Amino acid sequence: MAKPKKTPRPKAQTPKGFRDYFGTDVTDRAEMLQKIAGVYHRYGFDALESSAVETVEALGKFLPDVDRPNEGVFAWQEEDGDWLALRYDMTAPLARVYAQHRNDLPNPYRRYTMGPVWRNEKPGPGRFRQFYQCDADTVGTASMAADAEICAMLSDTLEAVGIQRGDYVIRINNRKVLNGVMEVAGLAGDDKEAERGIVLRAIDKLDRLGPDGVRALLGEGRKDESGDYTKGAGLTDAHADVVMGFMDAQRATGSETVARLRELVDGSDIGTKGVDELEEIAALLDAAGYGPDRIIIDPSVVRGLGYYTGPVYEAELTFDVQNEKGQTVQFGSVAGGGRYDDLVKRFTGQEVPATGVSIGVDRLLAALRATNRIGTSEAGPVVVTVMDRDRMADYQAMVAELRSAGIRAEVYLGNPKNFGNQLKYADKRNAPIAIIEGGDENARGVVQIKDLILGAKIAETATHEEWKDRPSQFEVPRDQMLAKVKEILNG
Amino acid sequence: MAKPKKTPRPKAQTPKGFRDYFGTDVTDRAEMLQKIAGVYHRYGFDALESSAVETVEALGKFLPDVDRPNEGVFAWQEEDGDWLALRYDMTAPLARVYAQHRNDLPNPYRRYTMGPVWRNEKPGPGRFRQFYQCDADTVGTASMAADAEICAMLSDTLEAVGIQRGDYVIRINNRKVLNGVMEVAGLAGDDKEAERGIVLRAIDKLDRLGPDGVRALLGEGRKDESGDYTKGAGLTDAHADVVMGFMDAQRATGSETVARLRELVDGSDIGTKGVDELEEIAALLDAAGYGPDRIIIDPSVVRGLGYYTGPVYEAELTFDVQNEKGQTVQFGSVAGGGRYDDLVKRFTGQEVPATGVSIGVDRLLAALRATNRIGTSEAGPVVVTVMDRDRMADYQAMVAELRSAGIRAEVYLGNPKNFGNQLKYADKRNAPIAIIEGGDENARGVVQIKDLILGAKIAETATHEEWKDRPSQFEVPRDQMLAKVKEILNG
Repeated sequence: MAKPKKTPRPKAQTPKGFRDYFGTDVTDRAEMLQKIAGVYHRYGFDALESSAVETVEALGKFLPDVDRPNEGVFAWQEEDGDWLALRYDMTAPLARVYAQHRNDLPNPYRRYTMGPVWRNEKPGPGRFRQFYQCDADTVGTASMAADAEICAMLSDTLEAVGIQRGDYVIRINNRKVLNGVMEVAGLAGDDKEAERGIVLRAIDKLDRLGPDGVRALLGEGRKDESGDYTKGAGLTDAHADVVMGFMDAQRATGSETVARLRELVDGSDIGTKGVDELEEIAALLDAAGYGPDRIIIDPSVVRGLGYYTGPVYEAELTFDVQNEKGQTVQFGSVAGGGRYDDLVKRFTGQEVPATGVSIGVDRLLAALRATNRIGTSEAGPVVVTVMDRDRMADYQAMVAELRSAGIRAEVYLGNPKNFGNQLKYADKRNAPIAIIEGGDENARGVVQIKDLILGAKIAETATHEEWKDRPSQFEVPRDQMLAKVKEILNG
Repeated sequence: MAKPKKTPRPKAQTPKGFRDYFGTDVTDRAEMLQKIAGVYHRYGFDALESSAVETVEALGKFLPDVDRPNEGVFAWQEEDGDWLALRYDMTAPLARVYAQHRNDLPNPYRRYTMGPVWRNEKPGPGRFRQFYQCDADTVGTASMAADAEICAMLSDTLEAVGIQRGDYVIRINNRKVLNGVMEVAGLAGDDKEAERGIVLRAIDKLDRLGPDGVRALLGEGRKDESGDYTKGAGLTDAHADVVMGFMDAQRATGSETVARLRELVDGSDIGTKGVDELEEIAALLDAAGYGPDRIIIDPSVVRGLGYYTGPVYEAELTFDVQNEKGQTVQFGSVAGGGRYDDLVKRFTGQEVPATGVSIGVDRLLAALRATNRIGTSEAGPVVVTVMDRDRMADYQAMVAELRSAGIRAEVYLGNPKNFGNQLKYADKRNAPIAIIEGGDENARGVVQIKDLILGAKIAETATHEEWKDRPSQFEVPRDQMLAKVKEILNG
């Protein structure tokens, strides 16, 4: 007889580039986000959770291939013909929310939001297609006080989650200053866009290439070690000096840096406006007590260039960690943002100035873990073992008693036949204590309490003699179980 | 000259069936979920956050139309040909996670998870295509102790979030008992599937149709008020008596109900097995002190029928609320679940018994709000107004002082020209206090502190005389601002 045809089993796998988060991966992040939300709330920011799904139209036109509008995003077409997509950041949805609800929202509108975003990119090691962002933005004000406030809040936030002062720095720059430098260096105008791009990429590579490498890219071009040639921006020496001077413009104090920048952009209106803005932010932060130990003006910050229209800022962690290659490096950037005055205009036609910051949640969490600033091992439950399966109700009563006292506890629910498996389970659960009550104990009205942490410690370090002297298992009357468990847990 | 062609503006709208959550909609939910997670954690459940995106293959075959595999789910095809989809519940992903990671997970595995799920359904009033679920499941044990534990935990959870004992009841039934009743009523066998469906739908309608209506559906059929005829299951009177008796089987105590059910399924092995399971759960819950004031056996529970293989349970809130039509009704179901022993088997071929519950987060939150058990109005910030835009640094210093003391505060960041707009803004922000410091106050070293809540109260109720006697605006020296704000807020 032919067997009935089987459908093949589905593969038990996350899609490529996606992952699952277990235990403390979830709870540590939640704990950190709660602390961040606390600071944001104190600053007057209101929570917002926009829908994860947006129309492709609302998310915007970064979709170069019109036939296939899912470049970079996860998108699909509805039966009615609409294209929908998963949000790829929190800023595009904010612009949509503000435009949709602007009559009901306070103006200016301070909001924070936290949650996953999705990117349809090629996954790689440590690069995922779903990750968390945590943003705070102020919409509806052109005041530099909004930018200064967000930088101050970012500083408070980093300290609130456990990054110590001195272990981070927030760097501020201004897009307009950069534009002014370009202007002075002869790169104004639409026909110079390619050259401006080369200059921006060169500035961004200062860390890696050093001043000589950057200088080469500003001029004729540069051949790297592998022999590959990168075309340069073709600046004259004098113009290249302006750009090099810009990267080197940081001085000991904010006001000295501002003065130096003012010299560099002399003659450029937009550049001068940018310097004025930086000066205003610096004055506000100084007055609020956020000195250069926390926030500095740093002309080398060149982030999100296509996007921002004024101040840009980023937070870097300055302590050392080992990278994958075992090299000692600074931890680096964990948050960044800036002013974007044009996003809401897409919807309403009216200019609505806005500024905001996005924290890279996974990076910041990794930093806290790398420096032991957040608990990395879950407190396991007390495990009540099952010696006699007919007495499950008694074991349940034990865990109920422990739970009522606020103690994490569970009864073993697997097959109780093999007691060794129960202790292995307790081990896997990272249980601090196992409780054992067999027929004999029950008859005598006692329970055995095994201190598993002490037991493991003794097993690791003690001689046989010490082992005997320092028992890690205690017999107590049943009605003293809770007290003894508390005693062990409080160590 | 022709104007450059404009691209049309995108519509600022959430896709149909999606919504945004603002302020307390977000924070109240987060607060409730945190309390729930606390109970789950104490019970030994570990957090899990699986990816929001799954392969269609892993989510399973509810996709009747092979050409269009996105029936009921949001799905799209990747360039490599794979179909991906947003999860529509938390159970299918759990089965995938368990199958994928089973060698690393404790066995049994207790896990909880909370987050959004997506359904590609026709949106309607109050029906959204993205909503929250909060689930707890135990995978890898056939023990009824797991089911009993989840019911006890559900009870503790409801009380932890603020539902008082007596305002809810958890009802337990068993799929096998229902199957046994079908068997005794002559509806065993594959050829009776249609009749079994009619009986199940009839049982589910007892509330609405009453016993006579259900009885008609068990026999020949029933004509409703509009004249529409619904075909019946064609049971004999004796067989219909069995089903009616089943619905009426609830007795004053669990053991009496169990005894009655045992009579009804006499002769059916599966039915007797189901009664045994119910009895075991009831005994465990009794021993743990969860009496009929919290958890009862109720044969009328018939949820999720295609899915569950043993115990099923649901939590109902029993207090009255007004429905949309102004009628007084019981609030109804907020959580449900049961045992599903076949889901992991899809992946591994091995049977992996599991049981779990899902809380309808939005329903439970609505219940807490309907009964004022969770704060519905956000504590607004203290608003520092801007009388002189050149003195922004001073105003920022004021909010910094308040924030350092843990007080929610913000400076007005809009155009300060119109002072009335600033007070309107404070009103919109639900601000308890506004602080005013103009040039005159500054010269005299004082600030004006407006108690907006008292002001509103006086304006509502007081005569003009009282108004004069009970000022809601206070002038204090600048260095006493913080103390006065604290006094008012604690007032």
